[in-house]
Amino acid sequence: MSITSHDIAREAGVSQSTVSRALRGDPRVDPATAARIVRVAERRGYMPNAAARSLVTRKTRTIAVVVADIKNPFYPELVEALHEALGRSGYRMVLVNERTDTRGQAGLAELYRGGGADGVLFVSVTIEQRVAKLLTASPFPSVLLNRDVDGADLDRVMADNAGGAAQVADLLYHLGHRRIAFIGGPANTSTTRDREAGFSKALAQRGAPLDPANRRAGEYSHRSGYQWATDLLDRAEPPTAIFCANDVVAFGALDAARNLQIAVPGDVSIVGFDDLPMASWRAFDLTTVRQPLTDMARDAARILIERIEGRDDPERERLVFPTHLVRRSSTGPPPA
Amino acid sequence: MSITSHDIAREAGVSQSTVSRALRGDPRVDPATAARIVRVAERRGYMPNAAARSLVTRKTRTIAVVVADIKNPFYPELVEALHEALGRSGYRMVLVNERTDTRGQAGLAELYRGGGADGVLFVSVTIEQRVAKLLTASPFPSVLLNRDVDGADLDRVMADNAGGAAQVADLLYHLGHRRIAFIGGPANTSTTRDREAGFSKALAQRGAPLDPANRRAGEYSHRSGYQWATDLLDRAEPPTAIFCANDVVAFGALDAARNLQIAVPGDVSIVGFDDLPMASWRAFDLTTVRQPLTDMARDAARILIERIEGRDDPERERLVFPTHLVRRSSTGPPPA
Repeated sequence: MSITSHDIAREAGVSQSTVSRALRGDPRVDPATAARIVRVAERRGYMPNAAARSLVTRKTRTIAVVVADIKNPFYPELVEALHEALGRSGYRMVLVNERTDTRGQAGLAELYRGGGADGVLFVSVTIEQRVAKLLTASPFPSVLLNRDVDGADLDRVMADNAGGAAQVADLLYHLGHRRIAFIGGPANTSTTRDREAGFSKALAQRGAPLDPANRRAGEYSHRSGYQWATDLLDRAEPPTAIFCANDVVAFGALDAARNLQIAVPGDVSIVGFDDLPMASWRAFDLTTVRQPLTDMARDAARILIERIEGRDDPERERLVFPTHLVRRSSTGPPPA
Repeated sequence: MSITSHDIAREAGVSQSTVSRALRGDPRVDPATAARIVRVAERRGYMPNAAARSLVTRKTRTIAVVVADIKNPFYPELVEALHEALGRSGYRMVLVNERTDTRGQAGLAELYRGGGADGVLFVSVTIEQRVAKLLTASPFPSVLLNRDVDGADLDRVMADNAGGAAQVADLLYHLGHRRIAFIGGPANTSTTRDREAGFSKALAQRGAPLDPANRRAGEYSHRSGYQWATDLLDRAEPPTAIFCANDVVAFGALDAARNLQIAVPGDVSIVGFDDLPMASWRAFDLTTVRQPLTDMARDAARILIERIEGRDDPERERLVFPTHLVRRSSTGPPPA
């Protein structure tokens, strides 16, 4: 004798319509009630569980988001925005915290093998050939968000990193700075590569080319900004302005100036990139470049879901969002 | 004719042993090669996919971590530690970003219904009865980490919040402070409740009870710390010391003092709780209470996995980790 929703309703002590709502995942059903209904339905063999449903539909309704360093405050911002955008389309998010630039990639390999996701968003890849190969080998639709990799056959969504950096170059030039330094993140990231290129090019066009002696490359970390700014500010002719490749590096540079009792912006101007919420805190009040993270996340999610659901365009997309310079109190004219 | 691993090996252009290694998930196989093998195997119907394997084993090897606000810098720390601990035991992590204190809980309901995880770690629940009911209704083994809920029938792992707060009370008392304030987080969190209780009790035992006029409760946010500290420091007889229920609130309080040009620690001492990496940055250099997050994450993961794998003790566990006071430059004697 086959089990009907009537049987489940009677055993769970609810109406038949509540049973069908609960099993459809309707959010109007109280979660505790829904859980009870599911337990009864599963025990009686009425409803296939997620694994069985997934076997039928071949869909997990799950998107893997691959992040290299969740502790970098940039990523929680992006992850929050993605979580919202995916949630609105009925997808949930698996967070894979993994560096793509090192050997191993156990989580990624498991993901590729296991089929536990319908698609992948890569938000912190590096630019090596081997990474391009790894991404192209993905058995699921995949989208690059924030970072770019030459030669990977994927859709990509990013900010205009070169353009944003050029806006910083213009600001510093017009304030009167000529001894200008750049502190990059990892040389193998497209964000550092494009920001440095845009910055150098704009300064060169103004006739104030970036002195190679004033370039540093490190990590996207407070420690790296602190160490390189200390190094730069200790020189005989220190820079009067430092552009840091992201906000976290700039926070480190501000701390270095504080430690050396060098006034910001009186003695040195400091600029970041990202406009993290912390950048507006009094402790930093950092001039920086805002990226439209919410819009970027929304479009990356949309493109990925279109690929998953087969409503996609055969052409790869490449969306580049304009940035916005946010002026705060960490920049001013150079010392007289 | 049935498909053998020999057929797959030939078609994928690799050895048979590479095929079996790849399909076992052995990390020694290059991810791109493994992905190719999986695609061939799936196309030929050789290997059941993750959904089919999961149907057989009834295990997803996935743990859901439910967090209320991934943008609060405390959670990425904890999530990173959990990711490590779970990864070492062969589990991956699904991050569910959801407030348990509001209606809806679409993600949690979906999780309960869908069976997409083997267990749940709750790291930012609130203390209402309704939340206790919701947690107890979980169809999976579940563990409470960091926060506590009375009446929920679950294992729990947390720091000694009351004890840590008592260490702060002792420090401030011995430095000579008597006009002391407390800025809490949400009143419906066990962390704020226990820290405030431990702080009040220790001050009362010293004969310097906390003046109710010097208590504030807000959110675990920079904005809340900024607003309440501004309010407290604007009073005719401002406090000479403020204990903030977490570091993010303390960063806001430090910013308020900076904004009002009130010297820290000359005019007011400020203390936090958590010891986030940022607390040691020069911009803050915050005296705070360290929680052993890595140990807490490891034990929460262990208990949950024991429950999932049936190696568990019928008794519920309740682990309380000692805290450690970290003195930095945000505390000193009160003004003369």
